[in-house]
Amino acid sequence: MTSIRAMFFDVFGTLVDWRTGVAREADRALRPLGHNLDWTRFADAWRGEYQPGMEEVRSGRIPFCKLDVLHRRNLERFMPRLGLTDLSETVLHELTVAWHRLDAWPDVTAALKRLQKKFLLAPVSNGNISLMVDLARRNNFPWDAILGAEVAGDYKPKPRVYLAACEAFDLAPAQCMMVAAHSNDLAAAAACGLRTAHVARPEEYGPGTGERAPTVPVDFAGADLGDLAGKLGA
Amino acid sequence: MTSIRAMFFDVFGTLVDWRTGVAREADRALRPLGHNLDWTRFADAWRGEYQPGMEEVRSGRIPFCKLDVLHRRNLERFMPRLGLTDLSETVLHELTVAWHRLDAWPDVTAALKRLQKKFLLAPVSNGNISLMVDLARRNNFPWDAILGAEVAGDYKPKPRVYLAACEAFDLAPAQCMMVAAHSNDLAAAAACGLRTAHVARPEEYGPGTGERAPTVPVDFAGADLGDLAGKLGA
Repeated sequence: MTSIRAMFFDVFGTLVDWRTGVAREADRALRPLGHNLDWTRFADAWRGEYQPGMEEVRSGRIPFCKLDVLHRRNLERFMPRLGLTDLSETVLHELTVAWHRLDAWPDVTAALKRLQKKFLLAPVSNGNISLMVDLARRNNFPWDAILGAEVAGDYKPKPRVYLAACEAFDLAPAQCMMVAAHSNDLAAAAACGLRTAHVARPEEYGPGTGERAPTVPVDFAGADLGDLAGKLGA
Repeated sequence: MTSIRAMFFDVFGTLVDWRTGVAREADRALRPLGHNLDWTRFADAWRGEYQPGMEEVRSGRIPFCKLDVLHRRNLERFMPRLGLTDLSETVLHELTVAWHRLDAWPDVTAALKRLQKKFLLAPVSNGNISLMVDLARRNNFPWDAILGAEVAGDYKPKPRVYLAACEAFDLAPAQCMMVAAHSNDLAAAAACGLRTAHVARPEEYGPGTGERAPTVPVDFAGADLGDLAGKLGA
């Protein structure tokens, strides 16, 4: 069993609570303008455009662009359905950077600080570098480097994203472990030869909606990141 | 005057003492094999191949490869001149990663911790990501992200390297400051619109050999990084 040298992390849903954070930031930006929506519905509508937006890049229909750019494009796509029109450029920008202002699940930062003592740590997220940096500053994530989509020039679950992360650290895939709350992310990482660990985030899309357990074979599974750190001896 | 949001750092010579470190590591790897060289001459010979090696990439004669790969190739280029032949693959690898085991100048880590409170910080070095990560772990450099040659796919002083770093942080060049002990690096950054700061490293190539002051116009100049931090109000 090759020893694990690095841990790679999915971020949205796995480390940070995007749904509550986006809803809070949308409320903050739009309520003063007289809009009074169901803000979690707003967040869900935005997240609903996430995979289709990235699929444009993965399929090669459009060249790679940062997730911030896709988030902005996706926002403009669903807004009219919620009756939002004529928002100013300033407000559209303020909404787009809502994704830079998300809070970690309560177990995350302490667990990363334990894991840091044993492993190299990096996000391997579809979020761009500046987005990852802002989330790290806000939540004290102790990253060794920011890896993921922007470094790879493509979006997960494309193999290039996982393999580029291993290569950046000069490690074989078997020396790297992908951590996510989403089985499809872990299945794709495992297909590239990485080790995998699932963390349960049962509240991701609202109470009782997230994956309580992986639906694919994984090397480790934790009730949260602290539980996983314990299982890894950190 | 646009306010500075991020500071970018040259690493070899500016933050770490490559000459003493490479000499120490070469001594450690080669003396047990019966070699007894002037180890600083060994380090200088290796560094002498640095710019010609990168020029192969900058000119487009060879595709981009990591600095670790160039360091290995450069090692094999100058070794015979010092009478070193028939070194094993293990020893060649051990020598190549000498560059991952360099110590910071004594003022650096404390100064970066002060600067971190005011600015985003990243290396914008020609060193690859794993090399930067190893130096950061060894010396407690508090980076927000690892930027530089490997992220840009080219070597300084090509403009792409500085501009890719600004873009990764979603900042205009005028919001970013390049810090280096080498005037040519600062001149290239300034030509891209970045702010610049010089730090003196008079011992870089041996006593009294480094730049005591910039030879080009800069925004700030410090006797060392602590002095520069003070001038920036950090």
